[in-house]
Amino acid sequence: MSRADRLVALLEERELDCLLVTQLVNVRYLTGFTGTNGACVVTRDARLFLTDFRYVQQAKQQVPEFEHLEASRELLGDLAAQLGGRAGFDDAHVSVRAHRLLSEKVGEGVELVPGAGVVEGLRAVKDDEELRAIRAAVEVADAAYQELRAAGLAGRTEREVARSIVRFLEDRGADEVSFPPIVAAGAHGALPHAAPRDVPIPRGTLVVVDLGARVDGYCSDCTRTLATGSLEDRPLEAYEAVRRAQQAAVDDVRAGAVCRDLDAMAREMVESSFGTGFEHGLGHGVGLEVHEGPRLAATAEGSLEPGNVVTVEPGVYVPGEFGIRIEDLVAVTGDGRDVLTGFPKELVTVDG
Amino acid sequence: MSRADRLVALLEERELDCLLVTQLVNVRYLTGFTGTNGACVVTRDARLFLTDFRYVQQAKQQVPEFEHLEASRELLGDLAAQLGGRAGFDDAHVSVRAHRLLSEKVGEGVELVPGAGVVEGLRAVKDDEELRAIRAAVEVADAAYQELRAAGLAGRTEREVARSIVRFLEDRGADEVSFPPIVAAGAHGALPHAAPRDVPIPRGTLVVVDLGARVDGYCSDCTRTLATGSLEDRPLEAYEAVRRAQQAAVDDVRAGAVCRDLDAMAREMVESSFGTGFEHGLGHGVGLEVHEGPRLAATAEGSLEPGNVVTVEPGVYVPGEFGIRIEDLVAVTGDGRDVLTGFPKELVTVDG
Repeated sequence: MSRADRLVALLEERELDCLLVTQLVNVRYLTGFTGTNGACVVTRDARLFLTDFRYVQQAKQQVPEFEHLEASRELLGDLAAQLGGRAGFDDAHVSVRAHRLLSEKVGEGVELVPGAGVVEGLRAVKDDEELRAIRAAVEVADAAYQELRAAGLAGRTEREVARSIVRFLEDRGADEVSFPPIVAAGAHGALPHAAPRDVPIPRGTLVVVDLGARVDGYCSDCTRTLATGSLEDRPLEAYEAVRRAQQAAVDDVRAGAVCRDLDAMAREMVESSFGTGFEHGLGHGVGLEVHEGPRLAATAEGSLEPGNVVTVEPGVYVPGEFGIRIEDLVAVTGDGRDVLTGFPKELVTVDG
Repeated sequence: MSRADRLVALLEERELDCLLVTQLVNVRYLTGFTGTNGACVVTRDARLFLTDFRYVQQAKQQVPEFEHLEASRELLGDLAAQLGGRAGFDDAHVSVRAHRLLSEKVGEGVELVPGAGVVEGLRAVKDDEELRAIRAAVEVADAAYQELRAAGLAGRTEREVARSIVRFLEDRGADEVSFPPIVAAGAHGALPHAAPRDVPIPRGTLVVVDLGARVDGYCSDCTRTLATGSLEDRPLEAYEAVRRAQQAAVDDVRAGAVCRDLDAMAREMVESSFGTGFEHGLGHGVGLEVHEGPRLAATAEGSLEPGNVVTVEPGVYVPGEFGIRIEDLVAVTGDGRDVLTGFPKELVTVDG
């Protein structure tokens, strides 16, 4: 069953006559289109794809299963004319202004109905082709950590290491990185979204390295915290607290596991053994976007199902001292889980 | 006068009591903040900046002129509490869903008023500091073309050339590219937004190379069409038609020039001398974003003013045969223009 066919089943559940899909990642997921301006309308009986003159040729090749319509660059006016009945739109993505323009241009009897999250719901469950791409993206990311282990970290700047990671991933066949790598040594590692600095990485510290590759559009996401020499007791204790909680959470990933319970369990383990923990969520889905559903967080809804691919990434952040995060990518299977990430989780010391 | 002070003058024109700024580029422009989650509220008397726990430290360093408030990651609820009276919001950016949440959370007597484009209007006029950054971004891009001339193109794949451009720009001090470079040989050059392919560039063809660097957050944008050997008459005629139209349009850039007239003039020149032309606009502003105001296009409003920085980029696209585009970055000055781009516009043959 095609993705658009599976979407139609969801439209019926929501009592929608059609869905207007404007967010580009969702458009790509449903149609295969990779350009920067396109949209589609899916009804029970029709699959319509719209793009502007720049992408007409490309769309003909990439979107064989849809009827095509060349539209003006703004798309909205031409889209409005294609809607009928109860028409779902992506209220989490369509701007107030675009919605007003749409409202003015739709025909009589068309009702615009908030419909965010429908395509995202499909995307949270990966098919075999998607899993293959994600595995390939994980493999090249694993190789990047092996390369870091070989090349060492101490004495290089965070920024130089980050750039070498990007180049390594590209040279090994990634389309690009799935996000700019984080390389954060010492106290800088206590900032969960630290930008790499032009400062040399010292010996005897922890370095948080968070990186991902994109292959055939699909992302990987992995964090390891590496040591550049011997450490004091406190960071070693923290590392073990994070590692044990991470492993326990990975071992609990299975179909039916409640997303917020996974988060709570890992959080409690870190806090009870080390006294402080992490303010971010335990994990998130990964696919065409590096952050997508399902979320593993205190406020998350729902439970895991086969085909979900999620990160498991608890951490410890001690302001002014150090940060630690360990993150695997895990696929939920019919009878458990498949840990995609291969690089070891025991503390690895580079620059030995 | 600070940027926020200049914004206040515009609020009074629009009869707004405050402006809620949520689009991150606008937030950066007003506050200096470079993280991925932040917003600000500007009133006549107050400057308030909000971010979540991840960016509190960074914001303290980057945003000295604003009062700070740590907010939850969604920001919206905490923002709503800070609004009063007629509160402008960015209706071109705020989603329908976010607007609904805001509406539910604002206090009594608060009226949410569409206010898109206010900050963008300020951003269209660059100050000296911004011009310095753009010049630096142009300089490194110019050097990339010199490097292409030296290294040659024939026999290399489009993708390899595109990657070498990225690395060159980074190695020469750019933060990053301002967009993924376009390298499109022969008939592929007829697609205005061609993605680089894994195919070797042949001899005796035209290659469209569109690239830009980002320095201190500011973009450059330049296109040159290079030859990889001797060409037939038709592409040579097309090149001259584009070059002459481009030069004429550059010479007409000045304060007071009507944006749509510039577009019409260049378009007519290309079409009258070569018979076919370009479907995209003649140009666009460049700054913190590679596409911003003012636009030079058939549907554009307004005229140029000192401090605008715009591209001038006519082209010719002959499907199945070749494409040509020549693009300079031009700053509007008090008494004319300053052409920032330095690489020659006469047809350059590499692989001589």
